[in-house]
Amino acid sequence: MTFRLYYWPTIPGRGEFVRLALEAAGADYVDVGRTQGASAVAEMINRGMHFAPPILENDYESVSHVAHILAWLSYPLDLAPPNERDFRRMEQLQLTVTDFVAEIHDVHHPLGPTVYYEDIVDVAQSGARAFLHDRLPAFLAYFERTLQENPYGSDWLVGDGCTTLDLSLFQVMRGLRYAFPNAMRLMTTPWLNELALRVAQRRRIRSYLDSDRRIAFNNDGIFRHYPELDEQV
Amino acid sequence: MTFRLYYWPTIPGRGEFVRLALEAAGADYVDVGRTQGASAVAEMINRGMHFAPPILENDYESVSHVAHILAWLSYPLDLAPPNERDFRRMEQLQLTVTDFVAEIHDVHHPLGPTVYYEDIVDVAQSGARAFLHDRLPAFLAYFERTLQENPYGSDWLVGDGCTTLDLSLFQVMRGLRYAFPNAMRLMTTPWLNELALRVAQRRRIRSYLDSDRRIAFNNDGIFRHYPELDEQV
Repeated sequence: MTFRLYYWPTIPGRGEFVRLALEAAGADYVDVGRTQGASAVAEMINRGMHFAPPILENDYESVSHVAHILAWLSYPLDLAPPNERDFRRMEQLQLTVTDFVAEIHDVHHPLGPTVYYEDIVDVAQSGARAFLHDRLPAFLAYFERTLQENPYGSDWLVGDGCTTLDLSLFQVMRGLRYAFPNAMRLMTTPWLNELALRVAQRRRIRSYLDSDRRIAFNNDGIFRHYPELDEQV
Repeated sequence: MTFRLYYWPTIPGRGEFVRLALEAAGADYVDVGRTQGASAVAEMINRGMHFAPPILENDYESVSHVAHILAWLSYPLDLAPPNERDFRRMEQLQLTVTDFVAEIHDVHHPLGPTVYYEDIVDVAQSGARAFLHDRLPAFLAYFERTLQENPYGSDWLVGDGCTTLDLSLFQVMRGLRYAFPNAMRLMTTPWLNELALRVAQRRRIRSYLDSDRRIAFNNDGIFRHYPELDEQV
């Protein structure tokens, strides 16, 4: 069955968390934004069923919100832990990723999504300082600890196999290193580094990352590299 | 079975979405923060399993994130739609509530949770203007439309009975009217107003709202009334 992904075509953004799951499983999908343009994504939103992209559909259902899409996909794509309790733990940790990603985004958009970064660089610098000092280390320490304390071993965050959550953490680590290379050099995250490497070495992920389907990080997405925001630690 | 809720004792905050579900169902629960103090909540966080409160536990499981807790609770508390597809739609809409609540919170905390409002009132005023002009009407219109287009009728957001999602929208509408009374007077939300009234009139909710278990909105929570932020529309 073919999935249809609706997401903006020029940024990895939140859509990338979904793409990584589809790619890791070799699922059949059409990236609607990239094949039919941003207007096809805008039209989907205008239909009113979903508040924002990414949206993933198959012939039976239409689903939005990254954490929710991944929970929906993870079983059929064989990227979920086998028992229900671990599945719920995975969903829960994915919601912590959602919060983390929102805070990363807000570093360059402190006054909401409608006020341009260029108009509020000074404000963003104060926010970046607070984020890099307090929140970034707190979130990273939390996920480090989650890896270390996984009763099945520290290869993956939940259970003993790769899940959609591990793929998301890979993307977060890559994004943070793109956006805040200086600040990230000061963070000690040996377990997360290993996890990111483990994900990158998966056969299908490796070939995806080398393909033109992978969209490079850029300064229109969630993870943006503004040197003036990375010098505050 | 008794549930234990871990949340800060002096604000409704995100814990209130969980309290409303427990109260609506007449569930047996202990509000740990209010009976044992904030230090008991802090200790729970320090154990490292959850990143932030609210946390809800029973004897078998310990769960965090409002949307996740409500999905977990809704079936046993008989506050879920009966079929799986509608259940997933409810979960998804609850995640839109999560995003909405985060944006409401960020109006008074534009630079993240660690920078005090009092230090950045001017910045917050610009953000409030953007929120009240663009985002507030967009979110409200989305939920209005969701109510109008519910194929089971417009009494509830999903399915033909009250779910945890309806309880959350009740709290959001009450909170918005507390925080932004002027701005809210300009919003046209007949369906949401009816929904909020319908929730408030439920027997158990009515008696909860009259009890001292209900914590009043105040300026330490998510929904804060700063008149200088409400005059920007």
